[in-house]
Amino acid sequence: MAKEITPRSEDYSQWYLDIVHKAGLADSSPVRGCMVIRPHGFAIWEKMRDALDAMFKETGHVNAYFPLFIPKSFLSREAAHVEGFAKECAVVTHYRLKNDPNGQGVITDPEAKLEEELIVRPTSETIIWNTYRDWIQSYRDLPLLINQWANVVRWEMRTRPFLRTAEFLWQEGHTAHASREEAMEETLRILEIYRRFAEEYMAMPVIKGVKTPNERFAGADETFCIEALMQDGKALQAGTSHFLGQNFAKAFDVLFLNKENQQEYVWATSWGVSTRLIGGLVMTHSDDDGLVLPPRLAPIQVVIVPIPKPIPALMEVANQIAARLRALGISVKVDNDDQKRPGFKFAEYEMLGVPVRLGLGQRDLDAGQVEVARRDTKEKVNVPLDGVGEYVERLLRDIQQNLFARAKAYLDAHITRVDKWEDFEAVLEEKGGFIAAHWDGTTETELEIKERTKATIRCIPLDAEKEAGACVLTGRPSQQRVLFARAY
Amino acid sequence: MAKEITPRSEDYSQWYLDIVHKAGLADSSPVRGCMVIRPHGFAIWEKMRDALDAMFKETGHVNAYFPLFIPKSFLSREAAHVEGFAKECAVVTHYRLKNDPNGQGVITDPEAKLEEELIVRPTSETIIWNTYRDWIQSYRDLPLLINQWANVVRWEMRTRPFLRTAEFLWQEGHTAHASREEAMEETLRILEIYRRFAEEYMAMPVIKGVKTPNERFAGADETFCIEALMQDGKALQAGTSHFLGQNFAKAFDVLFLNKENQQEYVWATSWGVSTRLIGGLVMTHSDDDGLVLPPRLAPIQVVIVPIPKPIPALMEVANQIAARLRALGISVKVDNDDQKRPGFKFAEYEMLGVPVRLGLGQRDLDAGQVEVARRDTKEKVNVPLDGVGEYVERLLRDIQQNLFARAKAYLDAHITRVDKWEDFEAVLEEKGGFIAAHWDGTTETELEIKERTKATIRCIPLDAEKEAGACVLTGRPSQQRVLFARAY
Repeated sequence: MAKEITPRSEDYSQWYLDIVHKAGLADSSPVRGCMVIRPHGFAIWEKMRDALDAMFKETGHVNAYFPLFIPKSFLSREAAHVEGFAKECAVVTHYRLKNDPNGQGVITDPEAKLEEELIVRPTSETIIWNTYRDWIQSYRDLPLLINQWANVVRWEMRTRPFLRTAEFLWQEGHTAHASREEAMEETLRILEIYRRFAEEYMAMPVIKGVKTPNERFAGADETFCIEALMQDGKALQAGTSHFLGQNFAKAFDVLFLNKENQQEYVWATSWGVSTRLIGGLVMTHSDDDGLVLPPRLAPIQVVIVPIPKPIPALMEVANQIAARLRALGISVKVDNDDQKRPGFKFAEYEMLGVPVRLGLGQRDLDAGQVEVARRDTKEKVNVPLDGVGEYVERLLRDIQQNLFARAKAYLDAHITRVDKWEDFEAVLEEKGGFIAAHWDGTTETELEIKERTKATIRCIPLDAEKEAGACVLTGRPSQQRVLFARAY
Repeated sequence: MAKEITPRSEDYSQWYLDIVHKAGLADSSPVRGCMVIRPHGFAIWEKMRDALDAMFKETGHVNAYFPLFIPKSFLSREAAHVEGFAKECAVVTHYRLKNDPNGQGVITDPEAKLEEELIVRPTSETIIWNTYRDWIQSYRDLPLLINQWANVVRWEMRTRPFLRTAEFLWQEGHTAHASREEAMEETLRILEIYRRFAEEYMAMPVIKGVKTPNERFAGADETFCIEALMQDGKALQAGTSHFLGQNFAKAFDVLFLNKENQQEYVWATSWGVSTRLIGGLVMTHSDDDGLVLPPRLAPIQVVIVPIPKPIPALMEVANQIAARLRALGISVKVDNDDQKRPGFKFAEYEMLGVPVRLGLGQRDLDAGQVEVARRDTKEKVNVPLDGVGEYVERLLRDIQQNLFARAKAYLDAHITRVDKWEDFEAVLEEKGGFIAAHWDGTTETELEIKERTKATIRCIPLDAEKEAGACVLTGRPSQQRVLFARAY
């Protein structure tokens, strides 16, 4: 299997597609821009979902479910929102098919036309704030901390599995608050949850920042984000948390009686991460032999392969080891396939990204040991059978940390401070990654740079020091460096 | 709150709507036939999903995700399937909106018309079997045991929250097998999982049976089901498991090389349960004071209410008890609201269906005891503080069993053997429930009975004894009784 992957050095884009396909993450589908998420890909998404869901619930959020369809008129209610969103959507116009009188198939029944078209949700602010109007009367009803796991549809022209698909899975949080401060706190609390999830579970280092007005979510007052860096030097927006101000409350007439007994518009946030994260996971850690998964998100953390085949004596020991590992909370697969050879299996599990592989041969057993191979560095060591449980437990933690450290070193080495325009273009072409440069704060300059280089301002980092300087393009004064990059 | 519920004796249908609304399960939405599942309703669904998902995984199934949209032509591929399904669907005809040149809103862009319309999935057999063609080549690829948690849309004319909505959430399993026997085994394995889930988690007794050809799933060779009985004497189909034969394999050209090296069509099953189960849960156990939840599906199993208010001395003990209960794996809420009075809170938790309520007053504390109230029977007892953890643990098991026993007694008392037509109509009118009667096996008679009485054949029970008899309507010979009922 592994031999069929295009090397990264040859064609990074094809390498990505090869990994997605051959590691069983996703397939294309007959529906334009929609993918099939295969069992291995979905198992990773389930682990992501469970970890995030627990973090949301720990911070007081609850889940709910709102309709898939949004009445067309709702999209026009918030002016900036419709401007930014309403264009590329799936539009439901009819509610019935009928047999084709001229043929064998079915046709849309022209008599079953909807009075008002329905839009398949591209995001749910409008339908949710329309509902919140009924749920919120007084400050006692606030805060409302609701999340939804759902599918959404945005009719994208160019799609790539996980990174950009017409339909994708995500979570969207929609919270309502009694004050600006509380809503802003929530926006940043979620941003920090996203950072922790990306770094501690995905082992993917990120930069927390705020978007420029031009890159803001349609309808938001501020959009915060976490930005990651892929192996090819391109950035990936991995999650966004929006401070929506009172925009949606005003659009949908959501007022509350505050403690001073006055009617006030409700303050809002919304935030989301999606199956796009799986693309980020692939492009942060994987190599030319296949997927590399951080142990905390690996559906199978350890595989035990009897060598050369699953004979009873070996299977007995393998099952004992598996039981010991499972007792430590580790997910284990014992390979009992007697059709394939060990070399083939090793390549297969490397392709799937299983973090640790135990090879168990008769000679190992006689010597009271087992061969332990780690996926991230490909190192192998012989470990005494006695302490293998604790060894593997520690190794999984090591792998998790090593993956993060490796990605962090790469990220740190690819943030380049640039002060001259000619360096800007050269760094972008030759090195890639983030460019920390001064910017004069205008959308005009931002767009001009994008036009010339395809690089966009990924974010204004939250932890950036104030530093007087001159815009890298126009030379006009600037107070702080921002991060530019080409992005997915 | 409780006082606003319409009594069941007065109007069962309105009682149901009152419970759904006032217990915070669901709200209506501005989209016709689509509901908003509120946090309390969704928390119950999450518990259902987690329990079922674990049962599917224990039996070797994995989750995946297939596109929301189905190309229109796919529906026509399986003849019986399109006959039974294709009519009432949401049809996507366009993929873009644009600003209305004559106004403020947006309109469907006539230039963005899809070449082939897309149907929002009413069920996914067609798109999944189209995918399986790429996944299955040989018997080594089988069985394929895949499940999907998803939303589906069926444009229903008359809707009721949870029981019948245009959009609903469900799981749909789609498995592929190398032989008829194996596929039939899978169909029945899942039916038994559904029975176990209904009886052991929902405390809702069910009858396992097979549908008549007239009530079969469109495209199935056999449809098995679990049927439950609601408090008003109407039946509820709670889950179906279909043996699809080779119908979809033939429609989508899915062949495999068997062990004898011959090409053969793949055998299939599909099976699903949906948010409809929440409606069944409500109508099996709840009463005029609100929701009654079986402990295994209750988001909060125990609530502790300090009386008359949450003063520090009471809160300390309440938190100690909560910690003890949580250590036993019980979910607990300590009520720390100092605005509402105990009587109001009691009614509120009864409305929400919390199985056990602990009332904690200073006098109780002085006596070293706590008042324990159970939601199912409304009984209250004083329990020594010392053993309260173990007492509550046992009580939750008792409540779970009691709810099942109560519902089982009701079901057993409402299966009436009927041999004469005049009795059939009388029992249906006066008593309701299932009527066990002989049927001549023809669709004609089945439809005639439905026409006359609105009762349908819910199923041919799997455990029914063979018994020669005469059809209750036509007097023609019959080998076995079947179950008739009016149904949701």
